[in-house]
Amino acid sequence: MQEPIITLLTDFGERDPYAGAMKGVILSICPNAKIIDLSHNIQRHNINEGAFFLFSVTKYYPKNTIHLVVIDPGVGSERKSLIIQTENYFFMGPDNGVLSLAATNDAVKKVIEINNPDYFLTPISDTFHGRDIFAPVAAHLANNEPLEKFGPSNQNWIQIKFPEVQINETEIRAEIIHIDRFGNLITNISRTLFQKTHGLQKKSIDLIINAQKLNIPLCSSYNQVKLGEILGIFGSTEFLEISKNQASAADALNSHVHDRILVKIS
Amino acid sequence: MQEPIITLLTDFGERDPYAGAMKGVILSICPNAKIIDLSHNIQRHNINEGAFFLFSVTKYYPKNTIHLVVIDPGVGSERKSLIIQTENYFFMGPDNGVLSLAATNDAVKKVIEINNPDYFLTPISDTFHGRDIFAPVAAHLANNEPLEKFGPSNQNWIQIKFPEVQINETEIRAEIIHIDRFGNLITNISRTLFQKTHGLQKKSIDLIINAQKLNIPLCSSYNQVKLGEILGIFGSTEFLEISKNQASAADALNSHVHDRILVKIS
Amino acid sequence: MQEPIITLLTDFGERDPYAGAMKGVILSICPNAKIIDLSHNIQRHNINEGAFFLFSVTKYYPKNTIHLVVIDPGVGSERKSLIIQTENYFFMGPDNGVLSLAATNDAVKKVIEINNPDYFLTPISDTFHGRDIFAPVAAHLANNEPLEKFGPSNQNWIQIKFPEVQINETEIRAEIIHIDRFGNLITNISRTLFQKTHGLQKKSIDLIINAQKLNIPLCSSYNQVKLGEILGIFGSTEFLEISKNQASAADALNSHVHDRILVKIS
Repeated sequence: MQEPIITLLTDFGERDPYAGAMKGVILSICPNAKIIDLSHNIQRHNINEGAFFLFSVTKYYPKNTIHLVVIDPGVGSERKSLIIQTENYFFMGPDNGVLSLAATNDAVKKVIEINNPDYFLTPISDTFHGRDIFAPVAAHLANNEPLEKFGPSNQNWIQIKFPEVQINETEIRAEIIHIDRFGNLITNISRTLFQKTHGLQKKSIDLIINAQKLNIPLCSSYNQVKLGEILGIFGSTEFLEISKNQASAADALNSHVHDRILVKIS
Repeated sequence: MQEPIITLLTDFGERDPYAGAMKGVILSICPNAKIIDLSHNIQRHNINEGAFFLFSVTKYYPKNTIHLVVIDPGVGSERKSLIIQTENYFFMGPDNGVLSLAATNDAVKKVIEINNPDYFLTPISDTFHGRDIFAPVAAHLANNEPLEKFGPSNQNWIQIKFPEVQINETEIRAEIIHIDRFGNLITNISRTLFQKTHGLQKKSIDLIINAQKLNIPLCSSYNQVKLGEILGIFGSTEFLEISKNQASAADALNSHVHDRILVKIS
Repeated sequence: MQEPIITLLTDFGERDPYAGAMKGVILSICPNAKIIDLSHNIQRHNINEGAFFLFSVTKYYPKNTIHLVVIDPGVGSERKSLIIQTENYFFMGPDNGVLSLAATNDAVKKVIEINNPDYFLTPISDTFHGRDIFAPVAAHLANNEPLEKFGPSNQNWIQIKFPEVQINETEIRAEIIHIDRFGNLITNISRTLFQKTHGLQKKSIDLIINAQKLNIPLCSSYNQVKLGEILGIFGSTEFLEISKNQASAADALNSHVHDRILVKIS
């Protein structure tokens, strides 16, 4: 039989025992689970960063993968614990929006509020639901326990959205939603949107970022410019990225997540 | 047949080839081993940090899990190499105390000094017993090789203890044994001890930490105080933690591991 | 049936979604693959560091392991994508030399240039061949798809070498090729070379590093010197290392990768 896959995405870091404890709980209940570490290095409590990460990754996984996210600044409060069943996956985590970009990108079929203590570790702590609630429930779900056993259906869950671009006749007002290890600036301008405003034939972009006016070529690969030159490119997540060939655009432009970027329409 | 689980806990970091070499050795001998990374980011040579990590995690694993720890400042010296069989697990690593908190927390049944070179890689290095001794022995153990094959029984092994609290009529003198990524200060005051000295109904704590006198509420979840307020809480390891709701108590109180903390009894 | 092993070595870091996406692609095509993380923390675009890491590790893996490396500053350029079949393994990655130290250390049998789009994800990005080309091809290879299906044989691939030592009558001019987390300085002087120039009985070494003249003992384990003393030792990769017992030689000697080191012959 196929081993069920459970992916883990947390803000626990690599030096604390929290992720290791969750893996033990999962394997104690579902010994044949295939546990895949997505990352434990999301900035602590950064729900937006986690939501974007999850959105970028989960669609590449096989059907029925359980994606478990523990970025949970509200642990122990009244915030709910969710299982979101989508067309292809199960997303589990706290009801703070961290699951929503990925889940709504697949088709949401059912949302369950986890509240059945039969599936929790005992005693249950008020500081670590990742270990005491989410890990055991994920493992029981991987064991094919029916979704309905874990709690009632709930339609009132928190959804966050990508920051929306604003478009007028002369410009797109966008922002940087992620900066990766290579210093690529990932914006919230999708390829689809850009093609609507700029057509398919655009060879360069005029933009303003951090009060710097730039005219940069729009490329389909980094090496279409010389080493160290700035370019625009639709990256692996299909968003417009501002990059520097084999160097860091973030360093060159002194840019940070949430910085505004204006792209001229002409 | 169930895949045997081998967990790895080391101070090798993420950029050196040492952990990757150990995984290869294990899989060459026991191809169906399920290798679980606990952490490779223990501070280099920090036996206490490793011992606390192991103590916090291993009890969540299924019976017969092999927990392999390589934090080994004395590699190549006369320090022994151990397998400690407990009620539920096998703990393997250098005889420097790193295994002792976790092993004695389960019931120790037998301690073996590894000395049978039939199970070692050849040639054996004097700088990397993780790869040349511990990894192959763990893999053979996972293959159900009898424990006695690896070496003789040995009762004379090194045990470390949590730093002990001192209690007099007016205060508990304790210390910070770990600070996690969220800045929670984990003390060596167990819930059991605290309930003996303070009873079950305590709603707040008077304490002195870094020459700062604090009166903080004793909560069962972070959100019982406002954002940014300091609180006391028995955390996921059942020790008293000094925390700050959605922020770092370590930053706020300028605290470090081994700092003293005085808790008033009143 | 044995689960096929695919190891991953990248410069993606731990906070971006790239490695997680590759794992999903692999598991979607080859659900029983055993994915082993070697490291995702190679310095970005550092082909030499990746090549040395791969060389140090891969020989410990079982026969038929697929070693997939994505350190790929030239992604989207004309650089080729390779599968190198050696006596025991398959090495996959960009044709920039990163595979060459490890591959030539095993016996190279066949080199394939990957160019069959039937095995690629669609649409294929120009910025992330790790996800769109290498991951799916590795998974199909793990499914026993014949090597020839992925593209034509190609003998013209890029090989890098360890920086070569220069030897004259009085000294070996060498360099530091890696510094590990413990501050050990790993040189390019192999045990074999040293034994040719210095014989088997040498008890100490005269060397110059960063304008500092040192006479240090040549040991077979760290603890043959006192705590904090500098020593020479042939480490786990069989190269001469300059180490400090339970401390960092790199800090003590203010050394960096590529620093020159002169070893006197006398």
